[in-house]
Amino acid sequence: MSSESVGEDCLGWAARDASGVLSPYKFNRRALGSEDVYIKITHCGVCYADVVWTRNKHGDSKYPVVPGHEIAGVVAKVGSNVHSFKVGDHVGVGTYINSCRDCEYCNDRLEIHCVKGSVYTFNGVDFDGTITKGGYSTSIVVHERYCFMIPKSYPLASAGPLLCAGITVYSPMMRHKMNQPGKSLGVVGLGGLGHMAVKFGKAFGLRVTVFSSSESKKEEALSLLGADNFVVSSNQEEMAALAKSLDFIIDTASGDHPFDPYMSLLKISGVLVLVGFPSEVKFSPANLILGSRTVAGSVTGGTKEIQEMVDFCAAKGIYPDIELIPIGYSNEALDRVINKDVKYRFVIDIENSLK
Amino acid sequence: MSSESVGEDCLGWAARDASGVLSPYKFNRRALGSEDVYIKITHCGVCYADVVWTRNKHGDSKYPVVPGHEIAGVVAKVGSNVHSFKVGDHVGVGTYINSCRDCEYCNDRLEIHCVKGSVYTFNGVDFDGTITKGGYSTSIVVHERYCFMIPKSYPLASAGPLLCAGITVYSPMMRHKMNQPGKSLGVVGLGGLGHMAVKFGKAFGLRVTVFSSSESKKEEALSLLGADNFVVSSNQEEMAALAKSLDFIIDTASGDHPFDPYMSLLKISGVLVLVGFPSEVKFSPANLILGSRTVAGSVTGGTKEIQEMVDFCAAKGIYPDIELIPIGYSNEALDRVINKDVKYRFVIDIENSLK
Repeated sequence: MSSESVGEDCLGWAARDASGVLSPYKFNRRALGSEDVYIKITHCGVCYADVVWTRNKHGDSKYPVVPGHEIAGVVAKVGSNVHSFKVGDHVGVGTYINSCRDCEYCNDRLEIHCVKGSVYTFNGVDFDGTITKGGYSTSIVVHERYCFMIPKSYPLASAGPLLCAGITVYSPMMRHKMNQPGKSLGVVGLGGLGHMAVKFGKAFGLRVTVFSSSESKKEEALSLLGADNFVVSSNQEEMAALAKSLDFIIDTASGDHPFDPYMSLLKISGVLVLVGFPSEVKFSPANLILGSRTVAGSVTGGTKEIQEMVDFCAAKGIYPDIELIPIGYSNEALDRVINKDVKYRFVIDIENSLK
Repeated sequence: MSSESVGEDCLGWAARDASGVLSPYKFNRRALGSEDVYIKITHCGVCYADVVWTRNKHGDSKYPVVPGHEIAGVVAKVGSNVHSFKVGDHVGVGTYINSCRDCEYCNDRLEIHCVKGSVYTFNGVDFDGTITKGGYSTSIVVHERYCFMIPKSYPLASAGPLLCAGITVYSPMMRHKMNQPGKSLGVVGLGGLGHMAVKFGKAFGLRVTVFSSSESKKEEALSLLGADNFVVSSNQEEMAALAKSLDFIIDTASGDHPFDPYMSLLKISGVLVLVGFPSEVKFSPANLILGSRTVAGSVTGGTKEIQEMVDFCAAKGIYPDIELIPIGYSNEALDRVINKDVKYRFVIDIENSLK
């Protein structure tokens, strides 16, 4: 790959240690390769992953950590061999920015499952050895394969959350054929992922029941998000009334919780997809076997399905509900993400607050 | 339904209490209904379920218990409205002999999942209140819907085990699209179910690896059953060499065992089907989520797929490996089933030993 020097300084906000406190941090993005796109970032969504690596929750943080993998922006330069994008295009970047491009999964455009490992958008080690830095920053240089076209009709502020929260629920919903009008979907947990699952469910023509640990989100779930039913999961009477009634469940709850109460709500051959990350998965074999049921996991998605999902959202007018914040609010925002005090995704207004 | 009196006495072997000891027991089968088939039983397979209910393992045994739900025989009489069978036909009866015939599952010919409950072939309570009695007996009267045609080319001695062991693995293999030549299948446990999974796997054109707790079945698995590979599951080196290599796993092991070592052998989007019955299912969410994998359960099958499976076995020459025994050996056989000392299914020679 030929390359031309870019040399723009990039201004980001980075955590320097496990306190996770973010503050301004200057660094250089790599020189523009022939197949690279240089993006002026306008917006970046705030994901729980940003908490995980800024605060070294997995013990593998490589400081300084510039978080952010729900990136939206405008193409400012393209390499000489870039075919899919031109200057001025609106684009997004999601949770990974490289892969081997030569294995069975890459060849199927399921690059997230690359045999050599997909390179995460931040706190990852790229194939050239550099530590990747995410979207809490003014610009990013990415191989065009890992960029997604955002239709100009789609607000850039809304686009970022599609690229992690959106695809994380859309991918298993498509894989497990949940786009069947008239079927029924349960959504466990109503955060960034859960609220997108409700929106996709309604767009697919499903009857959607939201399960939440408290009544506090009931009104919004029904009126704002369009869910058909809302159940407080501790209400055993309401839970029992739904026994064997759901075709599908998307479980987005990240904390530990029992699975059997939800498994028992599935019809015969029903499917529960887990996208949250509890410490273990445990359930009674009777709930699985006697109902011929399925429990499946999923993690974001490949580049082909991400672009499909973006296009689907644009065509159907599906937008995440966001709270737009300036970069200066990002530390408080991460605290609120931890406390689940967000409806339903923070998006940092990079273009107007990070200069 | 009109009915005509049959009045034949039926001779079976029954357990009288939780000792589970079987001994001769005379009783009457019901009068032949207009849609019923009267079957002279020639053979009956021995399933672990026979141990469960003769020995009251679930605390719900209704003595005397005449076990047996892998029944093969010859039609001796048919009711006036029977359309699918005639006297002299070879037929089989599996794990259930009635259902409501009016719910969504019955209408889909998935009667095992009948909303009102399918009626098990033995130790069940039929809709008329009678306690059902199984195939360790000279005859049975069954509604034609729950009978299966056994082609005359297919040995009756071999047919019984298809109707529980066979369908229990065939049904999820079809549901999860394992009939894709060139893909790879792991079979955990090599008993009645496991050895059928190997045979179906080879018939589907899969590369089959058998996982067993000991070397003792290696030679037979490879030479007799036709498996491609045999791994002792405690051999960590051999297990590690298979990481992320299998498209499918059928787990037939009934005892408790860890799931993560097998989950990690699945490729991305791989499917593990559990048909054994451990006391709990527990695994790491990472093995499920990061690999976008699926864990599914299954229990026997509906009448449509059972007949398809019988026809498939006849067409492909797939026969369970059986040890033919007289009824007088049934107590010892059940002990040997408990001790997993069977290659690979006992079948009771009813016609020659129960008179």
